[in-house]
Amino acid sequence: MNITQKSVNELKEIAGDIREKILETVSKNGGHLSSSLGATDLIVAMHHVFDVPSDPFLFDVSHQAYAHKLLTGRWEAFDTLRQFEGMCGYTDPKESPYDYYKAGHSSTSISLAVGAAKAIALKGESRVPVAFIGDGSMTAGMVYEALNELGDRKYPVVIILNDNEMSIAKPIGAISRYLSTTMASPFYQKLKKKTKKMLEHFPDSAAYMAERFEESFRLITPGILFEELGIEYIGPIDGHDMESIVATLKIAREMGKPVIVHAQTTKGKGYEIAEGTQEKWHGVSAFDLKSGEPLKKSGTVPATQIFGETLHSMASKDSKIVGVTAAMPSGTGLTKLIEDFPDRFWDVAIAEQHAVTSMGPLAKEGFKPFCTIYSTFLQRGYDQVIHDIALMDLGVTFALDRAGTVGEDGETHQGAFDISYLRPIPNIALCAPYNKSSMEKIMHFAAEYPRPLAFRYPRGVFMVEDSDVPAYALGKAHLLQEGKEILLVGYGNGVGRAIQTAGLLKEMEPAILDLRFVKPLDEALLKTLAQQYKRWFVFSDSVRMGGVGSAIGEFFAQEGIVDIALTTFEYADAFIAHGNTALIEQSLGILPEQLAEKIIHSRKKDTVA
Amino acid sequence: MNITQKSVNELKEIAGDIREKILETVSKNGGHLSSSLGATDLIVAMHHVFDVPSDPFLFDVSHQAYAHKLLTGRWEAFDTLRQFEGMCGYTDPKESPYDYYKAGHSSTSISLAVGAAKAIALKGESRVPVAFIGDGSMTAGMVYEALNELGDRKYPVVIILNDNEMSIAKPIGAISRYLSTTMASPFYQKLKKKTKKMLEHFPDSAAYMAERFEESFRLITPGILFEELGIEYIGPIDGHDMESIVATLKIAREMGKPVIVHAQTTKGKGYEIAEGTQEKWHGVSAFDLKSGEPLKKSGTVPATQIFGETLHSMASKDSKIVGVTAAMPSGTGLTKLIEDFPDRFWDVAIAEQHAVTSMGPLAKEGFKPFCTIYSTFLQRGYDQVIHDIALMDLGVTFALDRAGTVGEDGETHQGAFDISYLRPIPNIALCAPYNKSSMEKIMHFAAEYPRPLAFRYPRGVFMVEDSDVPAYALGKAHLLQEGKEILLVGYGNGVGRAIQTAGLLKEMEPAILDLRFVKPLDEALLKTLAQQYKRWFVFSDSVRMGGVGSAIGEFFAQEGIVDIALTTFEYADAFIAHGNTALIEQSLGILPEQLAEKIIHSRKKDTVA
Repeated sequence: MNITQKSVNELKEIAGDIREKILETVSKNGGHLSSSLGATDLIVAMHHVFDVPSDPFLFDVSHQAYAHKLLTGRWEAFDTLRQFEGMCGYTDPKESPYDYYKAGHSSTSISLAVGAAKAIALKGESRVPVAFIGDGSMTAGMVYEALNELGDRKYPVVIILNDNEMSIAKPIGAISRYLSTTMASPFYQKLKKKTKKMLEHFPDSAAYMAERFEESFRLITPGILFEELGIEYIGPIDGHDMESIVATLKIAREMGKPVIVHAQTTKGKGYEIAEGTQEKWHGVSAFDLKSGEPLKKSGTVPATQIFGETLHSMASKDSKIVGVTAAMPSGTGLTKLIEDFPDRFWDVAIAEQHAVTSMGPLAKEGFKPFCTIYSTFLQRGYDQVIHDIALMDLGVTFALDRAGTVGEDGETHQGAFDISYLRPIPNIALCAPYNKSSMEKIMHFAAEYPRPLAFRYPRGVFMVEDSDVPAYALGKAHLLQEGKEILLVGYGNGVGRAIQTAGLLKEMEPAILDLRFVKPLDEALLKTLAQQYKRWFVFSDSVRMGGVGSAIGEFFAQEGIVDIALTTFEYADAFIAHGNTALIEQSLGILPEQLAEKIIHSRKKDTVA
Repeated sequence: MNITQKSVNELKEIAGDIREKILETVSKNGGHLSSSLGATDLIVAMHHVFDVPSDPFLFDVSHQAYAHKLLTGRWEAFDTLRQFEGMCGYTDPKESPYDYYKAGHSSTSISLAVGAAKAIALKGESRVPVAFIGDGSMTAGMVYEALNELGDRKYPVVIILNDNEMSIAKPIGAISRYLSTTMASPFYQKLKKKTKKMLEHFPDSAAYMAERFEESFRLITPGILFEELGIEYIGPIDGHDMESIVATLKIAREMGKPVIVHAQTTKGKGYEIAEGTQEKWHGVSAFDLKSGEPLKKSGTVPATQIFGETLHSMASKDSKIVGVTAAMPSGTGLTKLIEDFPDRFWDVAIAEQHAVTSMGPLAKEGFKPFCTIYSTFLQRGYDQVIHDIALMDLGVTFALDRAGTVGEDGETHQGAFDISYLRPIPNIALCAPYNKSSMEKIMHFAAEYPRPLAFRYPRGVFMVEDSDVPAYALGKAHLLQEGKEILLVGYGNGVGRAIQTAGLLKEMEPAILDLRFVKPLDEALLKTLAQQYKRWFVFSDSVRMGGVGSAIGEFFAQEGIVDIALTTFEYADAFIAHGNTALIEQSLGILPEQLAEKIIHSRKKDTVA
């Protein structure tokens, strides 16, 4: 929908309709509610002022971009939001030419805007990239890296800072509003240019002093930080005052240099129950619109909760236990730990690099850090795991939540790669639980283990019910069930998958191994089992390349064991889409009934061969 | 050597002796010269003011820490600097208890200081972590992540900003010196505290205004950026004026909160030929002390130079070719490209995350970006390769320099992991050249290839002389030599290693395959070869886990090929030390004569089995 010719009143009406549609859909499908509602007015104004898709829109994380989707021919399709084969919860160029770029992880938008600006400059075009970024995303280092280049090269880029938690600066009332209006006006911009020109004729030191003097006028805005980096700053403005947003964006668009428009918004704007900064309304499951109550409740305990409760109980007894999360206190189950032990558990904001590295000295000083980061986000701290933890051989434990498929978040968030990227790192041990008991046992093992360790666990609940397991020892696997002929090797949630699959293959009497450690491997036991079982099937919720099957294959090659048929049911080499987990798993062919079929089928092939 | 009781004059003498020793040693062994000389006075003062090793010293990158080594019982051992089994060129706790932490990659020191401060606070001790960081390291995002937490939590940490290129702020003469002295004095600090106390009784808005007013006094220092983040700032001071450094550090130590001491130094201070900011004196080979001329010259052309020259020639003809380096223009061979095509080749400073992500939109807009980063530093941009390039399936080419062992830099810099961490990423292709001709052919292939691609090449020269090779096609290997019984599979520099090894095994008449692509594999050719050759040996300068041998093993498992004895000569699972490359390779057992031995030996074993 082209809304460039609409009046401010019409824009307000459009924003209202969009909010209604978002509420209606998210209450059914779940999704990112409060940020989408809070960003609606700004996004409507963006579409009014800028020329989309010619001007590249870069939505940071892009969980707040629902209004953008609804304005670009996806009103009907929006009903399928986050559903299998339906609309993605984030921007996605595969879905629409209006989506310039894919996002999901935070803090990439300004780098992308800089890249787009470089291309536009080389093409000699006048398109203006617009980065839309929340204050929460401003903590990650890559934003600073991008601002550092942008402020130096001065590409025309508009950054809309959607400040919905006021975490960057306190609102400072009348004076700032006055100043920001003044600063944004063409008159002020002209004056500034003139002053600069004039100053060029003065000796260096005078010009410098005068410039600084000029800057002191702006001290009472929160803009100094950006100005110091060479980026113009306008704000703060009211991000729900359509007139003011439109006027400001028009000025920003014409400035011909990098500018940050600082807009203050209210999360959840337009849905009273969700207004404010409560984390619970950030990403939601389906809920009742009138009461705000969730529609369904899970009967079993999610892995995250087991982790959080176990760590809380351990930390209560052992003052050496500390921990960190990078802006995911509730997502990683650390909320209560941070409340109860504020000196030992830290939320360092979106800053995975710093989160990892800062735990190193704590381990060196005798503490036991649990570094709790989603599998997909530890990719942001990869060098730090190698260079600052593993190389020092320190006892930091990495607890990787959301390992495996993650459901509705989709491609950007799948916890698929961690085994492959961590396994080649010297000094680190890798293991994984498959139920509550093994999770607890691993955590107790980790608390005593003096070297780097990472363990991974799934989003939501484990695949099998709890049952007591023996204690963990480094590199020791656990044979759950002897069998005939074939061996099912499980790792993490894959053990549950193997157990369920074995339940469908009772006639074949498969043996089941809980590998426990993919590094180091239980070489002695694997050798013994290789003599007994000649057909091995590997179950792990991770990519095949460099994964669990690969680790076992490497071991066989090294030992010269050449008579085993080794099949792995790990993920094929492709990004995994979003949607209901069961449907995703079915599309990957890893539901237990599908795997049982494959095993039966492979047996027939073998007989022929 | 405890120098806490020395006079300023004695400290100056000590600094002089240290400089002499550094010059003498580095001219023989090579090393980081100009930064070490420039940092000497500051480090001597640190040892005078602080209590080492009780106060943790965190040297960023730690290439400048030679003076620290010489002050901590390593004067004699310093002669073995960077030599095999000798002293490490960086700080290393394995070497001395005075080295609190390992470093080599940049911009970790402030995160480490924050971690140490947390541990110290929990222990109720009064030790003060000191981070020593160059202005070049300040561009990486993780510094900002760490400052963001530090400014919020206010741990007592002293950050010494060693500003030797003046890249952060211009020197601003007399006024700043006056102010910095004023600010650093106990009187000023006391006044400030009093003012704050007084202001607490005023209404909010007044206090805010007054605080900002106070800050305006400091506008003429470059400290605003840090003050905005909640870190105290003192400076700039002259980093070679021992009296002033000592006085300032004493004040900083007692402040009880985070403070940045901004010291301006001259790179190469004390060795006239190297004084200034010339990149050539940063890391040097052995050289003649009097003339400054290098002692030895290589006769053949290093891979980096081939890369730079080829890219220059391609860029001259094709305006779509663009490129980026993260602060390594000369190290990656991009210097001349940046000079000749300043609008198309960018140095974005130490900022690997931004470097990677910002190339995405350029590819999307039809350009062909070459993202040129050392193998070890791409670890810093890992998530960005996955999330911002591969997921978008864009035609960015990653040129990974320093893949394999890197010689004297050692553990922190080995390019060992890239195959393992890149291979699991969907959409990306991986290949590697083994001589000049294959490098050129790959680069021409890359220029036309529309999807993500990474190729790796070694530090220094290739293992074999140039010879013309056919053009590249995606996923096609190249059989260099037919043979009997055994097949040597080479990848990248490993092809040269295979060729040299084959030269020692002429009787066995081994076949030699240049794998060319480890992803996608040449499945058809591998299948054919698997019928012909039953003993395969893999040569690649990379870690075994998840590496080239692993890739081939995965393929065999997938195809049910179980009758091949697959041996890989990739790196075992351990960090690789520093020293002369031949000695390192010998210690790893990968010199051609050692590998030939192993192959002969394995044949005997096979016959027995």
